Order: sequence, then C-alpha cells, then structure tokens
Amino acid sequence: MRRVAIGLIGWGTVGGGVVDILNRDAALLRERCGLDLWLKTIVTRDPSRTRDQRTGATVATDLRAILDDPEIPVVIHLVGGTTVAKDLLVACLKAGKHVVTANKALIAEHGDELFTLAAHQGVGIAFEAAVAGGIPVIAALRDGLVANRIESISGILNGTCNFILTKMEAEGWGYDEALAEAQKLGYAETDPTLDVDGTDTAHKLAILARIAWGGRIPLSSLTIEGIQSLTATDIASAKTLGARIKLLAVARNRPEGLELRVAPTLVPLDHPLASVMKNANGIALQSSAAGPTLLTGLGAGALPTASAVLADVVDVASGRYQATVGHYGFFTGLQPVTLLPEAEENTACYARFTVADRPGVLAAIATALSNGGASVQTIYQATTTHDRAVIEVMTHPLRLGSFRQTVAAIDTGGLTVAPTRVLRKWL
Amino acid sequence: MRRVAIGLIGWGTVGGGVVDILNRDAALLRERCGLDLWLKTIVTRDPSRTRDQRTGATVATDLRAILDDPEIPVVIHLVGGTTVAKDLLVACLKAGKHVVTANKALIAEHGDELFTLAAHQGVGIAFEAAVAGGIPVIAALRDGLVANRIESISGILNGTCNFILTKMEAEGWGYDEALAEAQKLGYAETDPTLDVDGTDTAHKLAILARIAWGGRIPLSSLTIEGIQSLTATDIASAKTLGARIKLLAVARNRPEGLELRVAPTLVPLDHPLASVMKNANGIALQSSAAGPTLLTGLGAGALPTASAVLADVVDVASGRYQATVGHYGFFTGLQPVTLLPEAEENTACYARFTVADRPGVLAAIATALSNGGASVQTIYQATTTHDRAVIEVMTHPLRLGSFRQTVAAIDTGGLTVAPTRVLRKWL
Repeated sequence: MRRVAIGLIGWGTVGGGVVDILNRDAALLRERCGLDLWLKTIVTRDPSRTRDQRTGATVATDLRAILDDPEIPVVIHLVGGTTVAKDLLVACLKAGKHVVTANKALIAEHGDELFTLAAHQGVGIAFEAAVAGGIPVIAALRDGLVANRIESISGILNGTCNFILTKMEAEGWGYDEALAEAQKLGYAETDPTLDVDGTDTAHKLAILARIAWGGRIPLSSLTIEGIQSLTATDIASAKTLGARIKLLAVARNRPEGLELRVAPTLVPLDHPLASVMKNANGIALQSSAAGPTLLTGLGAGALPTASAVLADVVDVASGRYQATVGHYGFFTGLQPVTLLPEAEENTACYARFTVADRPGVLAAIATALSNGGASVQTIYQATTTHDRAVIEVMTHPLRLGSFRQTVAAIDTGGLTVAPTRVLRKWL
Repeated sequence: MRRVAIGLIGWGTVGGGVVDILNRDAALLRERCGLDLWLKTIVTRDPSRTRDQRTGATVATDLRAILDDPEIPVVIHLVGGTTVAKDLLVACLKAGKHVVTANKALIAEHGDELFTLAAHQGVGIAFEAAVAGGIPVIAALRDGLVANRIESISGILNGTCNFILTKMEAEGWGYDEALAEAQKLGYAETDPTLDVDGTDTAHKLAILARIAWGGRIPLSSLTIEGIQSLTATDIASAKTLGARIKLLAVARNRPEGLELRVAPTLVPLDHPLASVMKNANGIALQSSAAGPTLLTGLGAGALPTASAVLADVVDVASGRYQATVGHYGFFTGLQPVTLLPEAEENTACYARFTVADRPGVLAAIATALSNGGASVQTIYQATTTHDRAVIEVMTHPLRLGSFRQTVAAIDTGGLTVAPTRVLRKWL
C-alpha cells in the first residue's frame, strides 16, 4: 500500500478536525482507497497549543520543516486571510507541493495568480473545502455535471447568516439580537463583518461561477448586499407572503451576459432552498442535461470542512487531481467575464410601501407601478397602524434598475410617508 | 488536445441523450476538460433506427466493430436486462475496454464477477448513471465522503414510484389510476413490475451500500416491499398525521449489523425527502464527519442519465477513474455482508386499527400495545363510518418483529374488525 506523507499548516478548528479524522479513521481510508495517509509534519505558530490531540507528527513553527521535506508531496493549508496565508501557499507551490486549502478568500481574490503558479510548478491547488464545507459541490459542478451547460446557481453559502435569519424568524428577533445569539453559540465570530455583509458568500459564488463558466470573475463588480439591514418586519412580512428571506447567492447565465449577485432574497416556501435552516448550506443548480440538482448539508465546522479537505487529499494522493488540474479549463488562462450591471438584473421583487391610510392610495400605487412598467403579481394592503397603511407588492421578473426608479419616483412623489423597502424575490 | 474514441452499445433513449450532448456540447467538453470526445462507433440491433440523429459514427450491428478497434479505449454500455447485457459487457472487458454502464441490475446482481474480471483485465467499470441519473451520488459517496463512516442512507431512488405516489396524493387517486396516468405520460413502462415492486430501488440501494460499507450485499436477503398495495386511505391518513408516503430505500449501519430495506414509508413533512416530488429522486446521507448531506435531482430520463454517463466517460478518458478502480476497496475481493433479518429492524411504525365504535376500544388497544412493549408516540381515533372507528397509532422506534406480533395478537384477539394496516415511519 502506498504511504503518502502529509504536511499541515495551521492547527486551528479545521486542522483539529483533520487530525481527529486521521487519528480515528486512517484504517478506513486505507481499506477504502488503498492509501496510507500519514500526517508527518504540522506547522503552527504556537506548538504548545496541541488541542489536546495526540499525533505522531513533528510539530514545527518553521514552514521549511515541510518545504524542505521531499517525502511530503501534499500540504493541507488551513490559514485564514489573504496576506500571510497567500505567502505560505505560494511558498508551498514553489517548493513543488500540491496544496489543499479551505481559504475561499484566497482562491476568489488571487485564484488566477495562484493557479498559474501551480500550473507552472506542475502541481495542483484543491479547494473543495472552500465552498460549502461538507457538501461536495466543487466536485459535483466540475466533474458530475461536466457535460452540462450550467444555467443558474443559487445558494445559501454562509451558515452564520442562515443561522441568524433562522433565529430572527423563529424568535421574532431583530438582527442585533439574533447576531448576539449566534456569537454566543459560536456560529458567528466576534467580528462577523465578512459573514454578515455578504463578502464570504460572494467569494464562494465567484469560485463556483469560475468553474461553471470558465471565466475570471471580477469580484469588485459583483453586487453584494448583506443581511445587516434586515428587520423583524421584513422577515415576518415575507413569511406572510409565503416566503422566507435567505442571503442568496445567485448566478445566472443570461443571453445578455452573466448576472451575479449576493443579496437577501425572498425564497418561496415550496422552493427547496427555503427549507435550508440554521447553519446549513444549500446549492441549487440548473443545468442543460441534468436539469435541477440540489445539494444541502453543513457548510462549516471542524469535521464537515475536514471531510472536504481529506477528500481533496485523497484526490491528490491517488493521482486523480493531477489528471484534472493539468487539463481543466477553469484553472488558468481565463479571460475576465463582464458581469451585467446591477440595474440590468432580471429579478422578481418585493416592495413594502408605507402610506397614509386613506382611500385611493392603493390604486395610485398600482397605477404608478403599471406606468413604470412593473408587472405586479400580487398587491395588497397588509396592516394598518394608527393612520398608516402598508401596501405589499410582489412583482413578476423585471429589470431591477427600472423598478428602483419607479419606486423612487413613488417615494419622491409623496405617495409614501416612509422610504419604500425593496427586496429581491427568487424564482 | 487528446482525442478519445468512444464506442456506444445501444441507441435507445439514453443513447440518444448521449448523442445529443456530444453533438451539441463537444466544444464545451473540449474547453472544460481538455478532451476531444469522439463518438466513433455505435453498435445497435437495428441500424435503421437512428432516432433522427446525425452522428459521424460508424453504425454497426456486430459488437466486433468496437471490440476489434484498438483505437477505442472506452465503451458506453446502454443495454438493459442481465443476460445479453451481461454478455456484451463481459465481451468489452475481455477486449480490454473500459466500460461505462447505466445498468443497475447488472451491477447489483453480478457486480462481484464483473468487477473481478475488470480488475483482471486492468480496466474499469464506471456506473454513476446506474443510481439516481443526473445526481452525482456515486461520486459523492465514493470520493466526496471518502473520509466518513457512513451511518445511514435513505433515498427515493425510483422516479416511477415517486410520480405515482405524488399523483395519488395530489388527486386522491388509488394506485391503479395513478399507475395508468404514469404510463400515459411515459413515467411508467407497460410492464412496470420491476419499478413498482421495489426491485429497481433495491438494486440501487445495494450498489450504494456496497460503496458505503465495502461489503458484498446479498440481494436475496434484502427486505423489499413495493407500492402496489398502497391505497388512497394510506396516503390521506399519512398526510393527516403530518407525513407523506415514499418508497424509501433505507440502509443503516447499526452496532448489531447492517439493516437494508425498501418499503413504503411515512416520511415526516419537515424531512427534506418529503419534498422530493413527481419523478425526482433524493438521497439523504448521514455520515461521521460531514453530518447530514442531501442530494436531489432527476433520477432518470435521456439527458439526466446521459449527463452521468458522460461524467463517467470523462473520468475514464482523463485517466482519473483508473486511479480509483485500481485501489478502491469496494470493487473486488469483498466479503458478503450479513444483513439483519427483517424482524430485527429498528423502525418507528404507523398502524391503523379498524375497530367497532364502542367505548373502551381505544384503551384496550393502547393497553395491548403497551403490554407488547410498543412505545406509542401518538394515538387517536381518526374517523368514524357507520359503527366502525379507525384508531391510528404512531410509535417510537421499536423492533419490527415484536410490533408485528403485537398487532397480530390484537387482530386475532378480536379487538379489530379488519386486518390492521402497518407501515414504517422514517426518523
């Protein structure tokens, strides 16, 4: 049986998960795929923090312990951020090591440079763990659906946001209260910015889109909205209308161009993504031959992420990944894709108009929407408090820019007494 | 770019799907994975039936047109049944060809013999298309979850049955009416036996279990119940109790042994498999590191199945599959697994007792169940017609054999006026 020595950089939560699985299930992996995976060297900043884990590995602080070891062909890279993490990954590639990483920001922001360097060095960067942890979505998109033109991807890709939204709905809480609970339970970090503002989701969407459409995705021109401004009223209104608000990553390959966005979105309750609750992730793919495919599972956490990391390690150690990286088009030499501007987005919308409670207002709003070219699916007067009424509208798919202009004209025209709330609605 | 010549045996529905995709998306496949897939030769019984498809392929009736062609390394085998189909597959292996097949019966019934021959010949048999068509579940289980001990698999693996059950619920129809509709719409064959009696589902379950637990699954000792005896009352009662009846394939790795079964099963409405409707398939996996994973999509049809076939062709043509078959434990040399007998099954149950509508009967049934050791979750008197009442019970998980004995004793003891209906309920 072939023994494969592995280097590990970073002994944090996910690193601990990798050690756990190798400690417990090395025999299973030997039996299952004929590989003896040997964790030989761990490089960590503080070797005294061993997470109460026993390993037979050498623990070092200097990356050279891995780089200079010709016996180690593959390095598990579990370092966050895009500065030091990038230097470490580059050093591994330059030393001729295959790299398995869970760092989505690095792949999304510096993928071109890193994949090009890897190709030049004749090694691969595997990154299943970078998107949706325990769900093998990278492999499904790259290999399982290889014979499909991908028509759309919609996904819940950030467990922190999904947990917060689930709590807001279940408890009737506002955003701040739900965030505090998520932090208390360890589902959100002390500084949750990159999760709640949609950046993390955008990184993952960019990675999926790169594989699906073989283009370089310009992160800076992605439409990204987070969940911070969502209120208990938004959540409750959506529910009344038969929908649930999710932080949805959406990519659609339209005849006019590629449309990518991350935004809080009303998902109809009978859509399978609406049932993805708490810290779970879910990805719905629509493709030319397979049709609709849905994958759900745990997107983060020590063991789910370690599961993906080790799947990649096996892929590299078995030699399979080399047959992929050497030939697959999405790695290197990509042209940048021009994304459709946000105004050109084609989406159904939800709008909540706050108006004075007097006769004729609903008709006036309906007329204004109609004159603005917005095709209304449902409109009704939802609640009345004091002398105010709330009119809620769901539209058919329309050009987002035009709809926003129409709504702005309604607001400035004096029909409303508070700024109108507009959210996207998924198909 | 590497050109790979492909042979195709069988130009039926799925074969037509393969031709469609290659005709339309060969450029995409070249760009995506650097392979020029060239459909060189089609072997079919009736070369005049070209399905109105243009191909550049040579069309022949004699398998030698493929076997004797050294330029063809991989053969797509789309022949049903287990007799001629087996001979054809064996001939391909003996000629040193890799084989991609969608034939689940062949793999489930003759997998040992075929995998052993393939290993001897130094070639591989790929079979992603054999289970759940467009859903890449074989790859997810084999590769994506390679670092996981699989705890359970539950799946809706037969689109015909799921379509019939969906129609029964939607229209309030009986089984025969729904079957007729499924046949009319092409979702069921003229002779639907192997679909509706659970055999097809059992084949797929056996294949998944083989990969998950690396054992030879004795098909003959599998518990298999079909959907033919389900009534409109069963479907409606389940719905009232917050569940939906699915033909569920279940595999659980219990400390006592492996439990495999195919049976109509009440699935709670909030379980994601309950939302898998019409002809869709769905597989829920529970595993040691990734936790819960769910995959849903289309399990059959020309294009979804062709999508899986071509994913396998790419896997073989890229050389990746060879790195798998050469080493993976589930292919050859397996020990037969002893399955737990049906009586030892641990499952929650639903029971519908038909009784005379007189005081004390509910208490008598509850007492009999309690004396029999059945832990009841809910019990209530559901409907009354004339002088009869119906008492419906949902139990906690219990030993199936004991529960059936208890129910039989209730029936023979005269508490009921008609045979009691017992169905399994999923977790």
